[in-house]
Amino acid sequence: MEPFPVIRFEPPTLHVLDQVGLPHEERWLALTRLDELEEAIRALRVRGAPLLGLCGAAGVAMAAGHDPGDDALRAAAERIAAVRPTAVELATGAGACLAAALAVPPGERAKTAWAFCREYFRRRQEEDRELAEVGAEMLPAGDVLTHCNTGTLATGGIGTALGVVRAAHARGKLGTCYVTETRPLLQGARLTAWELQRSGIPAMLLPDTAAASLVVSGRVASVVTGADRIAMNGDTANKVGTLGLALAAARGGVPFYIAAPTSTIDPKCKTGAGIPIEFRPETEVGGYGSVRWAPDGVPAWNPAFDVTPAELISGIVTERGVARAPYRESLARLFRATTGEPSDG
Amino acid sequence: MEPFPVIRFEPPTLHVLDQVGLPHEERWLALTRLDELEEAIRALRVRGAPLLGLCGAAGVAMAAGHDPGDDALRAAAERIAAVRPTAVELATGAGACLAAALAVPPGERAKTAWAFCREYFRRRQEEDRELAEVGAEMLPAGDVLTHCNTGTLATGGIGTALGVVRAAHARGKLGTCYVTETRPLLQGARLTAWELQRSGIPAMLLPDTAAASLVVSGRVASVVTGADRIAMNGDTANKVGTLGLALAAARGGVPFYIAAPTSTIDPKCKTGAGIPIEFRPETEVGGYGSVRWAPDGVPAWNPAFDVTPAELISGIVTERGVARAPYRESLARLFRATTGEPSDG
Repeated sequence: MEPFPVIRFEPPTLHVLDQVGLPHEERWLALTRLDELEEAIRALRVRGAPLLGLCGAAGVAMAAGHDPGDDALRAAAERIAAVRPTAVELATGAGACLAAALAVPPGERAKTAWAFCREYFRRRQEEDRELAEVGAEMLPAGDVLTHCNTGTLATGGIGTALGVVRAAHARGKLGTCYVTETRPLLQGARLTAWELQRSGIPAMLLPDTAAASLVVSGRVASVVTGADRIAMNGDTANKVGTLGLALAAARGGVPFYIAAPTSTIDPKCKTGAGIPIEFRPETEVGGYGSVRWAPDGVPAWNPAFDVTPAELISGIVTERGVARAPYRESLARLFRATTGEPSDG
Repeated sequence: MEPFPVIRFEPPTLHVLDQVGLPHEERWLALTRLDELEEAIRALRVRGAPLLGLCGAAGVAMAAGHDPGDDALRAAAERIAAVRPTAVELATGAGACLAAALAVPPGERAKTAWAFCREYFRRRQEEDRELAEVGAEMLPAGDVLTHCNTGTLATGGIGTALGVVRAAHARGKLGTCYVTETRPLLQGARLTAWELQRSGIPAMLLPDTAAASLVVSGRVASVVTGADRIAMNGDTANKVGTLGLALAAARGGVPFYIAAPTSTIDPKCKTGAGIPIEFRPETEVGGYGSVRWAPDGVPAWNPAFDVTPAELISGIVTERGVARAPYRESLARLFRATTGEPSDG
């Protein structure tokens, strides 16, 4: 269950596996400037909430190498956080690295920030392992359905929801892992199927359209997905399509779990209504890569995320344990245990 | 609101627009043999339940040109019906043409069967117009979401669900028609978007994954889809993905309508549990055309249809009026009015 390499910190360079080329091409990017990092994040060359947290931190470290002044670093952290506003971990990673850097004199900031990145990465991998064990303990034996990619490619560790799947497989509890294609960017078909195949875990791909009938018919024992942001009442923003899976799970009486580190809980969001939803380019719809299947000139509606209301979520698996309804209390408890701070929520 | 040509009967040849090439290439097929027709149906070069009814009838006419004997014609009708077992209209069209042909001496059967096809087509176009007016009258004003393709390309007439959309547009009741891509074969993105654009109706494409959040958020005033088979209790088989839309509509308090001719009602199916669900080739998942985005060797689950339970359906629009719950009674009434026969259900 060791993760394969997807990110490396070698000051002044951040090396990341370019996920756009997968599964057919394994190409690494060497990033030294903030605009290069921004492009990589925007184009989803790096993606996945926890991995974006690492990238956010690395962005501050890069910036510190160019100009370690307070204003420059603060501006850099803000600029990175704005690239994908729904993914709270991007801002969290940048903010935490910023705080670490500002705590030392300017001359030491770049070094401190890069050291912070490495330590942050180590803690993240540890968190993934803890979360996976918590989830695997709880997951019903049998087949599972997951959505998008929440594996090593999303976190650098063994993954969140996919880490749970991996740990369940290691315990002999898992049958087949069903994977949605995850239009429009096909992270399920491209990335999750590839990771599962690489790990020798039985995988079965399905079109997003087929997920409702799979789940309602009770062919899977559970559904487990990641999260991009969790509000204090348990409402959860995740890859678009998650809401549909949660509705199908509720209809089929199948438990629906979110698996995400406590850092995904946003104390500033009281409910899902407070989570901003990114819209992505219309060109992602109606085609893929160089193939266009829609006629030219038809506009598209392309939100990157949707919000699943807390009442459809059977449990939120974190590295600190499973939160269950009522989430206002269980999440506030987890949040306090993690940060030592009371939440606003 | 006149339909554009997609099918022509010129004995001994059936001409059909090859829908696989759309929207980029308009290519016609000239079919004279049953195996050619079977290939075209299997490869979805012709598709859509009502258009398949016409093709089923044309298959019997073709067969009558080769061997008009009773056994040969019966075998041909059975062979055609078996190509796509969920689409009841394929069998209905073949069976009706068979009955017309068997009613005359062998020497007149080919001519009679081709004449039957033309008349069947004329009635179908008329039915589409009637159905569209019934639906447009009932449809709430505003935006609508539809799935797959139920337009001229599906029926040869102005369409079923898309006919309702067209008629609503003609009455000035329609805002935008949202269209799901409809993986894996992308009939929404390829065909429906093309038809709407061609008709000057405002269209907006979306990934199948985005439909739940669109509908739950109340951005559309209604959802309307076609049907491949309707059981006597109202359970409806339609293109895979329909069930997910119905669940989202129920959650969002948005009316969910099925629009289909009464010929789609199957008196032999008491409930949706009796509807056979076709599975299609695994290769349709994980790629499109020559592009593969999934790693090689990952298996896929690829049902062509799902079944939406009657309780999620706000109304079933037919050329004879709108059936509403309780469907056992309303559908039996419609069925009797159409066929003059009592149903088994």
